[in-house]
Amino acid sequence: MIKVGIVGGTGYTGAELLRLLAMHTEVDLKVITSRSEAGIPVSQIYPNLRQHLDLSFSEPNLDLLGECDLVFYATPNGIAMKNVRELLDGGVKVIDLAADFRLKDPAVWQQWYGMPHDCEDLLAEAVYGMPEVNREQIKTARLVANPGCYPTSVQLGFFPLLEAGLIDEKRLIADVKSGVSGAGRGASVANLLCETSESFKAYGVAGHRHLPEIKQGLSRISRKAADGGDIGLTFVPHLTPMIRGIHATLYGTLTKEISTEELQSLFEARYKDEWFVDVMPSGSQPETRSVRGSNQCRIAVYRPQDQDTVVVLSVIDNLVKGAAGQAVQCMNLMFGVDEQCGLRQVALLP
Amino acid sequence: MIKVGIVGGTGYTGAELLRLLAMHTEVDLKVITSRSEAGIPVSQIYPNLRQHLDLSFSEPNLDLLGECDLVFYATPNGIAMKNVRELLDGGVKVIDLAADFRLKDPAVWQQWYGMPHDCEDLLAEAVYGMPEVNREQIKTARLVANPGCYPTSVQLGFFPLLEAGLIDEKRLIADVKSGVSGAGRGASVANLLCETSESFKAYGVAGHRHLPEIKQGLSRISRKAADGGDIGLTFVPHLTPMIRGIHATLYGTLTKEISTEELQSLFEARYKDEWFVDVMPSGSQPETRSVRGSNQCRIAVYRPQDQDTVVVLSVIDNLVKGAAGQAVQCMNLMFGVDEQCGLRQVALLP
Amino acid sequence: MIKVGIVGGTGYTGAELLRLLAMHTEVDLKVITSRSEAGIPVSQIYPNLRQHLDLSFSEPNLDLLGECDLVFYATPNGIAMKNVRELLDGGVKVIDLAADFRLKDPAVWQQWYGMPHDCEDLLAEAVYGMPEVNREQIKTARLVANPGCYPTSVQLGFFPLLEAGLIDEKRLIADVKSGVSGAGRGASVANLLCETSESFKAYGVAGHRHLPEIKQGLSRISRKAADGGDIGLTFVPHLTPMIRGIHATLYGTLTKEISTEELQSLFEARYKDEWFVDVMPSGSQPETRSVRGSNQCRIAVYRPQDQDTVVVLSVIDNLVKGAAGQAVQCMNLMFGVDEQCGLRQVALLP
Amino acid sequence: MIKVGIVGGTGYTGAELLRLLAMHTEVDLKVITSRSEAGIPVSQIYPNLRQHLDLSFSEPNLDLLGECDLVFYATPNGIAMKNVRELLDGGVKVIDLAADFRLKDPAVWQQWYGMPHDCEDLLAEAVYGMPEVNREQIKTARLVANPGCYPTSVQLGFFPLLEAGLIDEKRLIADVKSGVSGAGRGASVANLLCETSESFKAYGVAGHRHLPEIKQGLSRISRKAADGGDIGLTFVPHLTPMIRGIHATLYGTLTKEISTEELQSLFEARYKDEWFVDVMPSGSQPETRSVRGSNQCRIAVYRPQDQDTVVVLSVIDNLVKGAAGQAVQCMNLMFGVDEQCGLRQVALLP
Repeated sequence: MIKVGIVGGTGYTGAELLRLLAMHTEVDLKVITSRSEAGIPVSQIYPNLRQHLDLSFSEPNLDLLGECDLVFYATPNGIAMKNVRELLDGGVKVIDLAADFRLKDPAVWQQWYGMPHDCEDLLAEAVYGMPEVNREQIKTARLVANPGCYPTSVQLGFFPLLEAGLIDEKRLIADVKSGVSGAGRGASVANLLCETSESFKAYGVAGHRHLPEIKQGLSRISRKAADGGDIGLTFVPHLTPMIRGIHATLYGTLTKEISTEELQSLFEARYKDEWFVDVMPSGSQPETRSVRGSNQCRIAVYRPQDQDTVVVLSVIDNLVKGAAGQAVQCMNLMFGVDEQCGLRQVALLP
Repeated sequence: MIKVGIVGGTGYTGAELLRLLAMHTEVDLKVITSRSEAGIPVSQIYPNLRQHLDLSFSEPNLDLLGECDLVFYATPNGIAMKNVRELLDGGVKVIDLAADFRLKDPAVWQQWYGMPHDCEDLLAEAVYGMPEVNREQIKTARLVANPGCYPTSVQLGFFPLLEAGLIDEKRLIADVKSGVSGAGRGASVANLLCETSESFKAYGVAGHRHLPEIKQGLSRISRKAADGGDIGLTFVPHLTPMIRGIHATLYGTLTKEISTEELQSLFEARYKDEWFVDVMPSGSQPETRSVRGSNQCRIAVYRPQDQDTVVVLSVIDNLVKGAAGQAVQCMNLMFGVDEQCGLRQVALLP
Repeated sequence: MIKVGIVGGTGYTGAELLRLLAMHTEVDLKVITSRSEAGIPVSQIYPNLRQHLDLSFSEPNLDLLGECDLVFYATPNGIAMKNVRELLDGGVKVIDLAADFRLKDPAVWQQWYGMPHDCEDLLAEAVYGMPEVNREQIKTARLVANPGCYPTSVQLGFFPLLEAGLIDEKRLIADVKSGVSGAGRGASVANLLCETSESFKAYGVAGHRHLPEIKQGLSRISRKAADGGDIGLTFVPHLTPMIRGIHATLYGTLTKEISTEELQSLFEARYKDEWFVDVMPSGSQPETRSVRGSNQCRIAVYRPQDQDTVVVLSVIDNLVKGAAGQAVQCMNLMFGVDEQCGLRQVALLP
Repeated sequence: MIKVGIVGGTGYTGAELLRLLAMHTEVDLKVITSRSEAGIPVSQIYPNLRQHLDLSFSEPNLDLLGECDLVFYATPNGIAMKNVRELLDGGVKVIDLAADFRLKDPAVWQQWYGMPHDCEDLLAEAVYGMPEVNREQIKTARLVANPGCYPTSVQLGFFPLLEAGLIDEKRLIADVKSGVSGAGRGASVANLLCETSESFKAYGVAGHRHLPEIKQGLSRISRKAADGGDIGLTFVPHLTPMIRGIHATLYGTLTKEISTEELQSLFEARYKDEWFVDVMPSGSQPETRSVRGSNQCRIAVYRPQDQDTVVVLSVIDNLVKGAAGQAVQCMNLMFGVDEQCGLRQVALLP
């Protein structure tokens, strides 16, 4: 059994982590900390956990966390980077679900997150926790930076095209739609039901923190960008009136002739060994509900009217494959457990 | 492994049964029939089952079904009663998720379902599949009538009060709110998103088919009604703009003095051995989302302003404890499997 | 033209008032105050008002307000009672959309609102702004207490039965369901889309502030209660996953024999001159969407299975007939304008 | 008063037309036909129209329609083209809300709508009812083809850029999201609340009927395309879990250098005289709810990270500016009534 601690489990990412870990057969959840809710049973805040989890939030305590094999940080950005060194030094592995260790360049981090980075050496060491590109490194990592929700859906959709050098890496468009849970559980007017239900809008058009993360990830695997070029990406996130789910609609400009059938084969071949990435049959229209509560990413690829624009549709549950599920997948890899362990739930549909 | 067949699996009850059975470790799903969808992979209609269930719908075929240990009927009302005798005679057990075997009196059945009953002897034999009142009979039943969704939520809420003879059994009120999935997956204008979303209404006020089922169930356990009296129940169902969930708000008139604390104790004692019935702490307000996708019923009891009206709040997921989950619970009992097997999922929240 | 001011227009009640007043042909909106948003154009917070309202929020200023004919208070409870005397003394009429002047008994007010009342004389003078019982008093009132949303839907449903002395006034049940906008526009976790969407729950079961308001209103018109008796009411409010709308399901115990047809006639006769109360044909099931954005209350009455329980269904838009619309209706009466002026919008359906 | 008839008013477009016309001061609604609902009061199907419209559906009858000044066709595609000639010959003007007269080329029409066109001469005569490009022609038209919902949102967003010759007309991308009411009021499984709520998906990626309509409209105004070139457009529609609203996110590749400020000025200048097109301040994020129930189109323009991709956000209510509202706007122009008459409602928010 993996002894697990969670720091900051009151948000939706924390709640989802608790849901998944409560059903995970190889995990012994030892401690969950929350300064604001210390002393309160977890199931009082999350009644779905009644009868499943007999644990209360406790004050953050590095000694208690130090007895764990693994600690998840489900805290706001900027917290983990201040705390993980002591845990790592004590032999505890860490997965950070916030953004602290996602960007390799501390200057870029500071530009987008508005504070200097506290531990650049750990930034260099941290492994980006996307098994579809980093499986081997994750297995041996001490510190994993769990990817963002938008970046997961966008990268999984673009990878096959960029790895094959098929599209103009300077002219990528990611039009992405997210459910409201992506905005977190903080008290805010903007995310009230009455503000977000029955409406649709774009936001962060001028620039969103996930933009540099996506560009970094795509640069790494792009054939051409690796040659020194840079990724050109227009990323427009949208708020959708639903709780869970991300739908990425990705546009690339083909630089080589390729048929719809070949595109389909390319995607199927790329992900044939990835249980959590499901390339759907040609002509499919993935629905976000088909992955609600599951760790799957479902993908379809199109070349409409045989124009030179290729369209990829990629859906995930932002709280699972886009957050807690991917973190559990990384945990499984780090501790030599079956990668699918605790992650085989069928999505809840309808 | 229990060899299982499903007749009519294209509706929401069937879909939910498939979801639960796909994750059930003691079940081998052999056949699922649908006249309209024969030949089509189940996962084409329910993409959440991709990678989990490699089975296609087939034409109804009693020979194939006859090789199963258990057959679930997830068909419209009036189908199972025409077909199950042959299966039962061949030693196959049957759980009917429709209403064919729920009412003991064939005349009442005909009155509410508009057709004569085909097999009154089986009606007499059938066991009402609510483990909280019928556990022992279910264990040895050949034929189980799975309760309706409204009746499950209402009966579980009224049982402790009626068993204790605390309320006037002539003056019960059940004001019940259901998500739209209770109306099924048939093509209809009435259940379009644009007709049901952002709106709330009552329906079936003059009389709903679940009324006689609830009255029958309550009569059976009521101390007073058992003495020859009859249950007086006003039942008003409402359509709520959400997919899953039933919230029953139940009103009874106290005929004896009892404090709030004693009411709480009464409910806790009644359900202390029922894992699927969770009596919440005094003052709780059960939310339907706290049982979304789970087989739990969560209950709270109140006596507002110390008046003589007792209020019970009872929530279930209409597709799980109100349909497919309760059917799986019965199956577990019938085959000697742990009652909770395949039913320990944590509800999906948020 | 009626010169109008609004104090505290940033909440949903204020926004709805602005929507209605912007389309009202007899109103000249002079000033709208908000301490927190002073200087900001109204249409920046409410973009639906772009091109309709060229006004900015300003600091509260009694001099400016004193130049108006009428001031609406759309503030939190406890504000209006501290401020209106000066306006009234200066000849300005006031409609308070909060609860400050709704309860006649200051002791009851203090009990439910947790603070002593500041001006008991004004409490005595204030007219409860429900035209269906108080039209003449409203016409000459200086100070109108605009009814609460739940109380409006519940009272309009019970009036005909209590006025006729047909039901047991000690045994009333009001099971009422509200959209989330009733909870206001404050930043709170409880009203986030992710907390309220796709879920249904009761709240305030032990006691809700609208309970004494409803009891006071019903006592006033009840034949029997007027003889010295008291109203016995169980009131259970529920939160429904939609933005607008209240659906009251009301239960009374008949004390006299009356047929369904006579009940229907009773309701039709009671409201035949009330354009904003629509008694629907027998057997109707009023939907909240049928009044979305309109000032109508739609009502249906049932006597299910000829039992002695009568059921009334009553729907309103909580922000219109339950708040801003009823306030405008009062304004029209107070200033001798056609009662329907500015309130003839057809509800938005779908 | 304009004597108006409606053919086929049972769908959502018809319902919205009724809502708008019931509040229009210059319209006398004489007849509304529906074969399936003949004899039934309109307000029985649309209870929001109770007290506003005392009219029943009648059998289609060209004599009655012939007495009108104007007939709206709110029928499925292919009906109007079979019937309008007789009306036009009799001096009745016609606005078709279906697609029968939208495409100028009968061969293209047949390709996308699957039937030969019945009256090519009328196709040539019909005026595309978008006042922002065709105001003068609409004023004198006998037959107006009301634009589709997607085409309205997309064209209004692209017009300023294409008219100015600023973007590559071969490389346009329109990623558009629609509420479910765009799919109509027909009984279908696909549009049930349980199939569409809490989910998001693309559809029609391989080709949607609004594609040729958009391309035709953009070709007409594009500086370059007018020189003989053709429009290259990738159009991906998506289904969004809400009732009303379209959000178009449009991407163009700049072919000339232009600053964000110049882009903003370009859009403001283009629409300064168009009351129904609201260019929002720089940095705005138009929400679909800001136009719910109103005839406005709200637009924002961006050039993210100063890349050569320009992003336009354009929102409309698909049933108003995208259907019935634009039709009423055309009617106003055709009959010399103030263009805004009956269309000044403030959008319903929240």
